[in-house]
Amino acid sequence: DLTVVEDLTTFGSEDSLWLKMRREARWDSIKEPALASYLYSTILSHRTLERALAFHLGNKLSSSTLLSTQLFSLLNDTFMEDADIRRAIRDDIEAVKERDPACVSYTHCLLNFKGFLSCQAHRVAHRLWNQGRHSLALAIQSRVSEVFQVDIHPAARIGSGVLFDHATGVVVGETAVIGNNVSILHHVTLGGTGAVGGDRHPKIGDGVLIGAGATILGNITIGAGAKIGAGSIVLIDVPPHTTAVGNPARLIGGKQKPTKLK
Amino acid sequence: DLTVVEDLTTFGSEDSLWLKMRREARWDSIKEPALASYLYSTILSHRTLERALAFHLGNKLSSSTLLSTQLFSLLNDTFMEDADIRRAIRDDIEAVKERDPACVSYTHCLLNFKGFLSCQAHRVAHRLWNQGRHSLALAIQSRVSEVFQVDIHPAARIGSGVLFDHATGVVVGETAVIGNNVSILHHVTLGGTGAVGGDRHPKIGDGVLIGAGATILGNITIGAGAKIGAGSIVLIDVPPHTTAVGNPARLIGGKQKPTKLK
Amino acid sequence: DLTVVEDLTTFGSEDSLWLKMRREARWDSIKEPALASYLYSTILSHRTLERALAFHLGNKLSSSTLLSTQLFSLLNDTFMEDADIRRAIRDDIEAVKERDPACVSYTHCLLNFKGFLSCQAHRVAHRLWNQGRHSLALAIQSRVSEVFQVDIHPAARIGSGVLFDHATGVVVGETAVIGNNVSILHHVTLGGTGAVGGDRHPKIGDGVLIGAGATILGNITIGAGAKIGAGSIVLIDVPPHTTAVGNPARLIGGKQKPTKLK
Repeated sequence: DLTVVEDLTTFGSEDSLWLKMRREARWDSIKEPALASYLYSTILSHRTLERALAFHLGNKLSSSTLLSTQLFSLLNDTFMEDADIRRAIRDDIEAVKERDPACVSYTHCLLNFKGFLSCQAHRVAHRLWNQGRHSLALAIQSRVSEVFQVDIHPAARIGSGVLFDHATGVVVGETAVIGNNVSILHHVTLGGTGAVGGDRHPKIGDGVLIGAGATILGNITIGAGAKIGAGSIVLIDVPPHTTAVGNPARLIGGKQKPTKLK
Repeated sequence: DLTVVEDLTTFGSEDSLWLKMRREARWDSIKEPALASYLYSTILSHRTLERALAFHLGNKLSSSTLLSTQLFSLLNDTFMEDADIRRAIRDDIEAVKERDPACVSYTHCLLNFKGFLSCQAHRVAHRLWNQGRHSLALAIQSRVSEVFQVDIHPAARIGSGVLFDHATGVVVGETAVIGNNVSILHHVTLGGTGAVGGDRHPKIGDGVLIGAGATILGNITIGAGAKIGAGSIVLIDVPPHTTAVGNPARLIGGKQKPTKLK
Repeated sequence: DLTVVEDLTTFGSEDSLWLKMRREARWDSIKEPALASYLYSTILSHRTLERALAFHLGNKLSSSTLLSTQLFSLLNDTFMEDADIRRAIRDDIEAVKERDPACVSYTHCLLNFKGFLSCQAHRVAHRLWNQGRHSLALAIQSRVSEVFQVDIHPAARIGSGVLFDHATGVVVGETAVIGNNVSILHHVTLGGTGAVGGDRHPKIGDGVLIGAGATILGNITIGAGAKIGAGSIVLIDVPPHTTAVGNPARLIGGKQKPTKLK
């Protein structure tokens, strides 16, 4: 395994984001000796960002019957095999750092943001699902729902540069699609409208912002750059660059009248 | 104990649902060797569905100060003593399998659905509560709220064939009553209207469907077959087979005009 | 350390609340032998309320990489050093016991109420934050969000006598301020209105009651004694002793027409 890692020159010593994160962790462990051994085991002892993430997630998702060592291998191997996931991990970290004013460092995001951790676990579950490994993918979904309170069906498709802020209570259904650079607050549901199968969940365009507690139901489209107000119940398509608010949601702003809503 | 189990002929080798679940688990452990030891310890090593459920729940609800072995015995003994709970467990599994299109197998429900697991833990807590064992019942409620984010007061009465879908954030108050064949989505509250004691929580009729994030408050009645829209705030009685939506909720459809809402 | 404890005469044998709690725990362990060793390790083996709370919280917030012994010392030391936190812990326990009809005893609150436990963990994180120990404060925030689903930024200021009822899904932003004797139900958000920094979160006056699922956004003021209805989306100032309900919230009752809303 070490040989493989050495060959992947985008990792380890060549990875500027990972070098930044290691610098942050070293600085934090000097400033806060109470965290030094925690930071060593979660960040500083790992050659790559992927390995650190696999270790941290494996620990968090493990249980008395699902071993952390087994989860670590599964997560790390998946990261090693899939360049798209590796890119998405980095895009997501940058998105959190850029868009969440409460995020103080890259390490802070990696260690502490359950939305970020849930999303990366989903990326692994999604790959397993597409390989036909449904029972393992569903086991990961279930642990993420218990541990981070983020319930994303492994078949759901999620772009990169996605921010799940706070994340508690997020539910994303089986046929939902989330574009790139989307921001989703806590308690958001992308759900269905009844107990029928088939394509039944929302499609979220690039750059959409969905406020806390918004519930978007059915196979509808939220256009690129749209904004969904906190607590809205959305049952209709929302055109691009338009704002929807209320219960039930109505459209209030187009491209020319942007509105705030987080 | 083994003798007791042998005597109960509805269990073990005579139990067709349990035989189906064991077949599913065997098939999954062949298809996914990474889960084989997990499936053996949670399903295949147990003679009965009740024993498997007690083992799985006991592990999940245990902590450094509440031992899994002690919880296992308490859960398993309660299941052995109460035929109504045993029937309700089976009705609930069938309800999840039938009404949730994302549920792929009975084993999937048993192992992964925190709404199902929370409901069965509640059934045990409710029996303890009725026996006057309040402190133990409240300790179980508390662990279920921490581990599965489902907060059901042990005094609440819940029928059988109940589906708690996704389940994160569900809150059910002390004097609430939930009928048979009810479906409840995540973030649903059956709460009170103030800090007064007494009978203060909703009564939910048979076959009711409550959408995600609906909040139903006070000692009101939701009639059989009614539907409560996602995100609704319900403060008034809802007649049978009627739909209520909005904040505050208004009645929109009777028996003749069914509406979708999950 | 023992010497320090002996010197603080408000603790241990002189502390009437703690004596009451120990009596409750002894009584419960006689009535429910299944909980005797749990009650001994969490309550009866500790000289002070603070030590018991530090032990219980340390266990709950610990992980494979954050040791319970380390958390215990950090929590207990902070309680010993800060008389305001010690007073607030007691005010909060009294508030839960007085205002929540489902709370049967002080011990019940200490052991089982994740809102109470989250609030005390926050008090420690807030002190660390003010001492410039940001990474440790953020690690505690993160564990509380995972374990109790209560996400309070360590910089947020919270008064005493505060009740977080049920607590699942509560989110409190960095610049939020919560007064004394406030009651906050589950799924409540005190959030921002966009990705800008600075003073951007609500200020909640003394004695305010915020119903389940209410979302209060922006640097607005909720006046003393105001009531916010369940599921309300509040984007405007609410005067003292006034009730706000709806999405978006409108003001409906002043001092003379109190309304119920939990």
